[in-house]
Amino acid sequence: MISFESDYTTGAYPKLLQRLTETNMEVLSGYGNDVYCESARKKIQKECACPEADVFFLAGGTQTNAVVISSMLREYEGVIAAKTGHVSLHEAGAVEITGHKVLELSQVDGKLEAPVIKQFLEQFYQDENYEHMVFPGMVYVSYPTEYGTLYTKKELTEISKVCNEYQIPLFLDGARLGYGLMSKEADLSLEDIARLCDVFYIGGTKVGALCGEAVVFTKNNMPKHFVNHVKRHGALMAKGRLLGVQFDALFTDGLYFEISKHAINMAEDMKAVFKEKGYRFYLESPTNQQFFIIENEKLKKLREKVRFGFWEKYDELQTVVRFATSWSTTEDDLKWLKEIL
Amino acid sequence: MISFESDYTTGAYPKLLQRLTETNMEVLSGYGNDVYCESARKKIQKECACPEADVFFLAGGTQTNAVVISSMLREYEGVIAAKTGHVSLHEAGAVEITGHKVLELSQVDGKLEAPVIKQFLEQFYQDENYEHMVFPGMVYVSYPTEYGTLYTKKELTEISKVCNEYQIPLFLDGARLGYGLMSKEADLSLEDIARLCDVFYIGGTKVGALCGEAVVFTKNNMPKHFVNHVKRHGALMAKGRLLGVQFDALFTDGLYFEISKHAINMAEDMKAVFKEKGYRFYLESPTNQQFFIIENEKLKKLREKVRFGFWEKYDELQTVVRFATSWSTTEDDLKWLKEIL
Amino acid sequence: MISFESDYTTGAYPKLLQRLTETNMEVLSGYGNDVYCESARKKIQKECACPEADVFFLAGGTQTNAVVISSMLREYEGVIAAKTGHVSLHEAGAVEITGHKVLELSQVDGKLEAPVIKQFLEQFYQDENYEHMVFPGMVYVSYPTEYGTLYTKKELTEISKVCNEYQIPLFLDGARLGYGLMSKEADLSLEDIARLCDVFYIGGTKVGALCGEAVVFTKNNMPKHFVNHVKRHGALMAKGRLLGVQFDALFTDGLYFEISKHAINMAEDMKAVFKEKGYRFYLESPTNQQFFIIENEKLKKLREKVRFGFWEKYDELQTVVRFATSWSTTEDDLKWLKEIL
Amino acid sequence: MISFESDYTTGAYPKLLQRLTETNMEVLSGYGNDVYCESARKKIQKECACPEADVFFLAGGTQTNAVVISSMLREYEGVIAAKTGHVSLHEAGAVEITGHKVLELSQVDGKLEAPVIKQFLEQFYQDENYEHMVFPGMVYVSYPTEYGTLYTKKELTEISKVCNEYQIPLFLDGARLGYGLMSKEADLSLEDIARLCDVFYIGGTKVGALCGEAVVFTKNNMPKHFVNHVKRHGALMAKGRLLGVQFDALFTDGLYFEISKHAINMAEDMKAVFKEKGYRFYLESPTNQQFFIIENEKLKKLREKVRFGFWEKYDELQTVVRFATSWSTTEDDLKWLKEIL
Repeated sequence: MISFESDYTTGAYPKLLQRLTETNMEVLSGYGNDVYCESARKKIQKECACPEADVFFLAGGTQTNAVVISSMLREYEGVIAAKTGHVSLHEAGAVEITGHKVLELSQVDGKLEAPVIKQFLEQFYQDENYEHMVFPGMVYVSYPTEYGTLYTKKELTEISKVCNEYQIPLFLDGARLGYGLMSKEADLSLEDIARLCDVFYIGGTKVGALCGEAVVFTKNNMPKHFVNHVKRHGALMAKGRLLGVQFDALFTDGLYFEISKHAINMAEDMKAVFKEKGYRFYLESPTNQQFFIIENEKLKKLREKVRFGFWEKYDELQTVVRFATSWSTTEDDLKWLKEIL
Repeated sequence: MISFESDYTTGAYPKLLQRLTETNMEVLSGYGNDVYCESARKKIQKECACPEADVFFLAGGTQTNAVVISSMLREYEGVIAAKTGHVSLHEAGAVEITGHKVLELSQVDGKLEAPVIKQFLEQFYQDENYEHMVFPGMVYVSYPTEYGTLYTKKELTEISKVCNEYQIPLFLDGARLGYGLMSKEADLSLEDIARLCDVFYIGGTKVGALCGEAVVFTKNNMPKHFVNHVKRHGALMAKGRLLGVQFDALFTDGLYFEISKHAINMAEDMKAVFKEKGYRFYLESPTNQQFFIIENEKLKKLREKVRFGFWEKYDELQTVVRFATSWSTTEDDLKWLKEIL
Repeated sequence: MISFESDYTTGAYPKLLQRLTETNMEVLSGYGNDVYCESARKKIQKECACPEADVFFLAGGTQTNAVVISSMLREYEGVIAAKTGHVSLHEAGAVEITGHKVLELSQVDGKLEAPVIKQFLEQFYQDENYEHMVFPGMVYVSYPTEYGTLYTKKELTEISKVCNEYQIPLFLDGARLGYGLMSKEADLSLEDIARLCDVFYIGGTKVGALCGEAVVFTKNNMPKHFVNHVKRHGALMAKGRLLGVQFDALFTDGLYFEISKHAINMAEDMKAVFKEKGYRFYLESPTNQQFFIIENEKLKKLREKVRFGFWEKYDELQTVVRFATSWSTTEDDLKWLKEIL
Repeated sequence: MISFESDYTTGAYPKLLQRLTETNMEVLSGYGNDVYCESARKKIQKECACPEADVFFLAGGTQTNAVVISSMLREYEGVIAAKTGHVSLHEAGAVEITGHKVLELSQVDGKLEAPVIKQFLEQFYQDENYEHMVFPGMVYVSYPTEYGTLYTKKELTEISKVCNEYQIPLFLDGARLGYGLMSKEADLSLEDIARLCDVFYIGGTKVGALCGEAVVFTKNNMPKHFVNHVKRHGALMAKGRLLGVQFDALFTDGLYFEISKHAINMAEDMKAVFKEKGYRFYLESPTNQQFFIIENEKLKKLREKVRFGFWEKYDELQTVVRFATSWSTTEDDLKWLKEIL
């Protein structure tokens, strides 16, 4: 059975496993203090055009969000996020476990809007009782969003401006960053993101690594004793090399961008197939995740031949489903999909 | 200057201070193990027609909400509340500090609606990824709500049914319970509330006490070692008598209801004044809190002569304000108000 | 039956209730923004010879410890305390609920020793793995200690020096501060404590108030948005006047010191009675709490006539018990005690 | 330079990387729902002679301790551990972040003693104020301990009995379990541990895996919705296969035991070298971690040629250091070490 269930159903891009094998018997320090982490750090700083960036490797997305958010917020602050944001909905309350509230705002196609954030912040400080409320202490956006959509450079710049005005950091969750950057519709570069955000992470788990996310603090703002924050969240890998070697490979010769581009090409082809077959798109996504509205009857039959993700109930008779491509999607997969549809 | 700022701007109903004074030199055990707490407990059980109820006295509302919610939820659960609920907005994240999320649902005039709750619960368990989400583990309602509105018996019964169906407790925040029960429009009695809810509290601080809320567990469901939960939240008063003596007095000869009734009568008179003077009501409230939309220019002038609460910005030119009566509001206060308006 | 069970078994020093009654009908702002809180603040600043001190009123000791400790520590820090400290043993984990560890050190008669603290700090920073450990971020001492003992001026000065050297705040829990200051053996004044500590609190609950502790930040170091910290711990009283009026009375005409002195005099007389009767002292306490080692057989009989506190098992046949005096202990109480013994 | 710094300085046992490579392109479900996790589960159940065991794979030790402890404790409970236990000292407060206290007891050579635990529990429930204290809710032991020592079958049986008597679970941290089981002095089998403990984990990270720990619940006692607990700690790996494939390989044909045995053989040889050269052992360890007391002068020189771990200051002139062997230690390493020493 072919699968478009998600972008984490195959292992690692082969080159990464090869590098893990080649370096396997080298004696290296633990906890991220090895030469591969160091090399990966430098390559990422360069790609971001931000030589002063602090780069730290963590294993997974939820973990990264919790560590970054809780280490950057003050005790009395919460994080602003879209109602549909990953931290709001699909991380089982990993932010709340650290004592912080997710301040959920309305969204359009998964995206926060600068004027909505600004209005929220304005009203907060106008409220006579604001000392009885959770202070807004950070803005969280995902790029691409949970709906595969992208902020434009203009949109992210506006959000960044609002954050600057209120002096709160802007955090970009890049669990699928490569698929965003390589989209044909993207007008944001990695450099732009490093410049506009105070902290963001470059997703590895969903872009060809066995696991791993690279957190990038761009404004000399890595929280003091960040290693300790990571450790107390149980997120410090003894064999940090596992992350370092993979990211070092991903950022050698543009591999990260190349495999992301492949997934985007496959997604474009997949969209063409669905369009041709007359399927109804739930929204317009320019990245590797595509959402369709399908009748429940038809869904059942499809499920016998192809794997894909349930997203949400659309109405009594129809369901929104997600088809995702990845670095490992092949043209053969698409051929079969076309036949099935 | 007269004040309609809130229902906690004067001290205690005089009888309560008198009782504190009369019992002051008695040697009593600490931490709520005194005869007055015991007596108050019995009187409350009787008023609730629930002899098996567990009753525990705490000092304030936010504290009570945090202790009750965190002690009743399992680690992986959150509490459903209206977006405008006190626990959602005005408790500075006191629920989140305990590691739990407030699952905010839409509301109408401050009230949750049974079908909305039911739909949320249904969709939660239909979601294939529900194990990655915060489990709904309790429903929180306030009575009266933060907007002074009241659930009807039918509405609360429906919510209670949904809770039973999904086996999650229904918690009613009664910070201003007396003002709800004594409203002319109320069709819920204290007995009804004890029957329909799994836990609720009878507010003292805003209904004539110096401080104090009486938590009532009605279904033999007080969390094991509840005293310990209270202690670790820093909420266990050494001189529990302070709460016991006051609640004992409030529940002697119907005092709690009597002074609540007075506040309602004053509120009705106050509404009449505002109506007569042509003021615009923000919504229809049958309890002691009334909300008006007033032009900012006029507001400024009013502020020189009477104290009231800011609620929220209505638009660029107008503001929503709150006027509250209490057990201590007098007919003279209303006369002066009429003149000022 | 007479009681030496604790210093919180009677109500309030009568003058305090009288003041609450006299001011009861005044319309006052909530949450500590009233004239009595303000007046009490000024009087405390003066007594501390620290006009720049920030003073905040909270309801109880455990609450105060949790709010102060968690608002002053950074996320990765813990608080150093004696193994026998109140925060270590008898607050049900109220510090841990905020995510912080109590770093328990050895003690002598309930007191931490400066060299022990210093050695702990030295070793911490010598450890190659200190980034994997909880950072020591504060020192907590109680005065008097849980065993009724007192730090000398020399001892507290030494601890203060160690704290300065490592730039961590020194926090003094003064739940029974009055009984310490008025002890014949005390060589520390309130001014000394304000000078040597970064933050401390003046206990009211155990020294004549119905409830209330006055936190004093002495070094322009009150955490930003402290009200919000208090609120999110559920510790912000709506009727802050309850605390303000009482502390205003306690710090008028030296009342706090006068009633503390009375308790100390009674304790001295009580010690004389026990000595005369040949009882064995568990340790030498110069304050209002006295600890005796009594045979279990005898204990049983005593319990029929006088109330006192269990402290700990001494061995199979004997128990350590606590007898406490307070502002409300009378000479008659002592006469009866003498007869009983 | 050769290294005896720790057992996590090389990558994975080669067979594991080979299996990851062989299975790399297979399409597998995420989050631990793949065939390799399932296969590994079954093999572990069999080795434990516990077919009903629930087995869950996590990435690292601190994470595992935090998830297991916080998901099994009730809100008002803490975990008993040796003062020198990993959860007490070297996890940066990862237990406290979940709101729970580590109740630290005295130890001998890193081991808790059954009578000490029993006395602590007895005294706890004898204390009249136990409701104001953190309830002991679990016992944590490590095997081998942080000092490389081992509980005998008799000792662990006694601790297990105490736990049964007080109905609290016994949790065994097996970060280095293989090195314990394969020690010549071990009289505990994996079956014994599964029988005596309520939950334990089989360490992978330090025994040949890139990362990974297998938690085993042996008494039908896996906490409800355990996946959700894991997720909210940020510990749920999207590509659970990374853990499943490795543990499947480790538990095929006794590989886990074989590579552990190798490390023990190397440790025995290393001990012989140190003995021969007249080095002073800090304590007698029968596992892969060995502790020596070395003069600081000598230490400096050694550091130029071999890597090892700092443990603690012994006195002004000497230091305790740790030398660890692992599955990847070679006879050549030992030859060189002998020359250096």
